[in-house]
Amino acid sequence: MEEIRSVNNSYIKYLKSLKQKKYRKEHKMFLVEGYHLVEEAAKAKVLDAVLVIDKKDQIQGVKNYLINCDIIKDLANTVTPQNIIGVCFIKQKKELTSNKVLVLDEIQDPGNLGTLIRTAIAFGFTDIAVSNNTVDIYNDKVIRGTQGMLFRANFIEVEIKDFLSDLKAKGYKVVTTSLGKDCITPDQLPKLEKSALVLGNEARGLKDEVLELADFKVTIPMADVVESLNVGVAGGIMMYLLSKQK
Amino acid sequence: MEEIRSVNNSYIKYLKSLKQKKYRKEHKMFLVEGYHLVEEAAKAKVLDAVLVIDKKDQIQGVKNYLINCDIIKDLANTVTPQNIIGVCFIKQKKELTSNKVLVLDEIQDPGNLGTLIRTAIAFGFTDIAVSNNTVDIYNDKVIRGTQGMLFRANFIEVEIKDFLSDLKAKGYKVVTTSLGKDCITPDQLPKLEKSALVLGNEARGLKDEVLELADFKVTIPMADVVESLNVGVAGGIMMYLLSKQK
Repeated sequence: MEEIRSVNNSYIKYLKSLKQKKYRKEHKMFLVEGYHLVEEAAKAKVLDAVLVIDKKDQIQGVKNYLINCDIIKDLANTVTPQNIIGVCFIKQKKELTSNKVLVLDEIQDPGNLGTLIRTAIAFGFTDIAVSNNTVDIYNDKVIRGTQGMLFRANFIEVEIKDFLSDLKAKGYKVVTTSLGKDCITPDQLPKLEKSALVLGNEARGLKDEVLELADFKVTIPMADVVESLNVGVAGGIMMYLLSKQK
Repeated sequence: MEEIRSVNNSYIKYLKSLKQKKYRKEHKMFLVEGYHLVEEAAKAKVLDAVLVIDKKDQIQGVKNYLINCDIIKDLANTVTPQNIIGVCFIKQKKELTSNKVLVLDEIQDPGNLGTLIRTAIAFGFTDIAVSNNTVDIYNDKVIRGTQGMLFRANFIEVEIKDFLSDLKAKGYKVVTTSLGKDCITPDQLPKLEKSALVLGNEARGLKDEVLELADFKVTIPMADVVESLNVGVAGGIMMYLLSKQK
């Protein structure tokens, strides 16, 4: 088992660069912290290496490195990190794997994105398409928010309009939430064989050019004083309702 | 209009102390940042004073102070604060005002609490009861998460078990979310005239002594790989469903 003692070691410097989105994109690798996430990464077969403080935490079938607390602190984003860091491959398929797709355009808050991913897996939206102006999936706050469910999703990076047009051609019905006038309530939504739920930016909602592609624009009825629901909550309600339709 | 120029001014020092829960409790006052929240506080008639950088931002009927950017930065929690701070009274009624009550026990994450408050107002749960081991309502992250809806809620600080017993005596049915065996699905929930939805800690859920008081324990059906939903999402789905029952 190889031991690394210095934060200046070139491999550690490389790993530290993965805290930045551009290097994650370049190397197609990202880091996770803690036993639960490392275990989920191993199950999902995307674990390349682990760095541990204690030899007993070694994991079979991947590269193992013995490191110290200084290095953990250097690599970790949490204030009191657990004694393990995982190095993971970014693997993205291009094909759809289910008849329910979550499509995210310009979601900005990492907590919201993490929650949406966790909820999507709960309700069978295993295909998650994200626009390139959405906060990075492999941001550490997003990863924590998913509670390990990151590894259960099939992520697809998309140009929203092209992707929605493709989905429609394949028989998916595009469902959006909206506060506009020509909207239906969730109860008015017909049973859908294949559905794509599209959610937009926290402050601005969905762009008109995306709303134009919607087959069903849904408004969740709520008190007048409330401008809108949190996107994670609105998405949760819609995914719950669509998951019950089968 | 009184001008304050120094962060060492005694009133500013007093206001700064309100960043801590114990001083908010002692003085029954709290701060809000930004135009939207100050406006909502004024509408709700809980605004005591405003501190502004620009005289044109003065508000009729409350105390106004002219301050500078150093003081704003000293009092604000956001990185790029707007040019206004509001000083608000903590007002809590003791009575219930509606037939739908949200009861929160040991919610720890300020973002979750803020989202739950916003969602509660959206779905008519204007009475919100909180245990004293729940994160403080007047924490700045909670306030921001409510998107101004803080001022629309009737908060009641409670000892959970006593409060739920009282509610039951008044004809409210206690609904909890749970992952236990003896649970019903949301569809099996009968129509309820008066309901209290109880949500618990993010990691541990509800304590057994609280679950024992439940009239209906509900499990939201989800994929096996997912341990639980985010409490804001689970609460959102349940409040949406209960709001539709009338």
